[in-house]
Amino acid sequence: MAGGGTMMLGIDIGGTKVSVGRVGRDGRVLGETLTRPSKARDSAEVVDIICAAVHKELAQGGADVAGVGLGCAGTIDHAGGVVVTSPNLPLKNAPLRERLQERLGLPVTIENDANAAAVAEHRVGAAVGMQHVVLITLGTGIGGALILDGKLYRGAHGAAGEIGHTVVEADGETCKCGRRGCWEQYASGTGLARVVFRTVGLFERGAFSGEAVGALARENFAAAHVALAEVADWLGLGIVNIVNIFDPEMVVVGGGLGNLGELLLGPAREMLKEALPPGRDQTRVVSAALGADAGLIGAALLAWDEFGVKGKREVAE
Amino acid sequence: MAGGGTMMLGIDIGGTKVSVGRVGRDGRVLGETLTRPSKARDSAEVVDIICAAVHKELAQGGADVAGVGLGCAGTIDHAGGVVVTSPNLPLKNAPLRERLQERLGLPVTIENDANAAAVAEHRVGAAVGMQHVVLITLGTGIGGALILDGKLYRGAHGAAGEIGHTVVEADGETCKCGRRGCWEQYASGTGLARVVFRTVGLFERGAFSGEAVGALARENFAAAHVALAEVADWLGLGIVNIVNIFDPEMVVVGGGLGNLGELLLGPAREMLKEALPPGRDQTRVVSAALGADAGLIGAALLAWDEFGVKGKREVAE
Repeated sequence: MAGGGTMMLGIDIGGTKVSVGRVGRDGRVLGETLTRPSKARDSAEVVDIICAAVHKELAQGGADVAGVGLGCAGTIDHAGGVVVTSPNLPLKNAPLRERLQERLGLPVTIENDANAAAVAEHRVGAAVGMQHVVLITLGTGIGGALILDGKLYRGAHGAAGEIGHTVVEADGETCKCGRRGCWEQYASGTGLARVVFRTVGLFERGAFSGEAVGALARENFAAAHVALAEVADWLGLGIVNIVNIFDPEMVVVGGGLGNLGELLLGPAREMLKEALPPGRDQTRVVSAALGADAGLIGAALLAWDEFGVKGKREVAE
Repeated sequence: MAGGGTMMLGIDIGGTKVSVGRVGRDGRVLGETLTRPSKARDSAEVVDIICAAVHKELAQGGADVAGVGLGCAGTIDHAGGVVVTSPNLPLKNAPLRERLQERLGLPVTIENDANAAAVAEHRVGAAVGMQHVVLITLGTGIGGALILDGKLYRGAHGAAGEIGHTVVEADGETCKCGRRGCWEQYASGTGLARVVFRTVGLFERGAFSGEAVGALARENFAAAHVALAEVADWLGLGIVNIVNIFDPEMVVVGGGLGNLGELLLGPAREMLKEALPPGRDQTRVVSAALGADAGLIGAALLAWDEFGVKGKREVAE
């Protein structure tokens, strides 16, 4: 069944939306990507939503599709094709690969969404040619993924890269993971919202998006600068931690808040320079290049790896 | 010159002492190891001290030595044989491999001391058969080393694994690295001394060794238990961070303070169980098996890798 087509479908599913796009072997998205809501009550509904999106995308001219790569938030057993746990989808030990293969009649591969995004940034994005890359995605929380010695590093059980859940402030803010003081409580959209609420005080908590604060900062609204500076400090602190742990060539910063670019990365780089001794400050800190499509592109590239050569893996294996 | 002998010399040099031992291909130490002071004013003196220790060891019956593996604290350019920086030895961009090869007439390989210890624990110690291992050594500070996908991970510039210098308490205790709140200020001998000083209050700061506190705890001296519990909390916090970052099969705890064993590891394991969701708490936390010899054994094993097959690398290359 595998291998005949000239493109792969890349899918990126999160708690609120699913995106689908056709991706060539070179990582380019062909035509437009499709984005739909993904709110589901159980795993059967998740499968329905994905299949509906795929059929819609295929109807738009994707007949020549050889396989599917799915990026999904959570702990993924990539080899087994199982979503072990997911923070925002009703999936627990869900054999999603098998279910989707049955329904779609196409070979499917599954990967953690941040891992998929890292593969994309490494092969066709901001980190081309690098061997040691840490990707962080700043959204509501902080996702992380690792390219080590040129390869995606998944850890022993597919759960490596949860850098957002390293404690940087013992007894700090309560995190949804149950611990206190996780980095993602400070250097994320959640962190920014909290800082804005405290420093500006004019708006209800959570009323401000990162985008809005960025726009205000660009218009030299002083309080927005103050709020961003505080979040940038936390971002820098965590990036210095990453450099001490991994000694990477590059840290790639993506996600919604990452779109603020130099407003956050500039101060973070300054902190890196100050915190590390000369000669240890060689790690580059850059913005992600592929934006919101990184996850589906990376998932499709992983599908190219597995299904790009005809017969390399059959659905029925 | 390389390859003829039936043993390698393993050396472990730190700020206060240097240890030398003869090591077989199976990682066993042959005969006794030699330990001497290593206080040096400059790099030439470091070379002198190492050569004197080697000659003394060779005189004890090590004529059949094929090469030398040196474990050294600091950032090491393993491929170039250069000590880039060292926290406690007067070495800066020091071409130690070349200097030692000239003086000793033997091929030499250099590695970070914690990395060397991790290689030893992985091949012949506590982590045999594991593919994903994080080693932490609890001494005055905290050292770290990474075995990822079955191989030593050095990072882009030989500086990976400095887990002791991840900030776990923003604006916390000042660290000698210049930052504040580094993990090694809390879950190390330094941290224990501080806690003992604060909770017991009877003795001068630093008067208590980890060993002494451990002995008091074993005799059910309540304050010692309280102090160890606090340090164990910090240890557990950092190990949960490690599990979130690396998702390893095993965390191996060595170093002087690590010798306290279950007094520290028991509570740390409990914390791991509480902090991670079921299914994510599969990482084993164990004591190092090789004690103070781990560094020299690992350095020698790396020498075996490089010089064990005759002619694999010659001094003059």
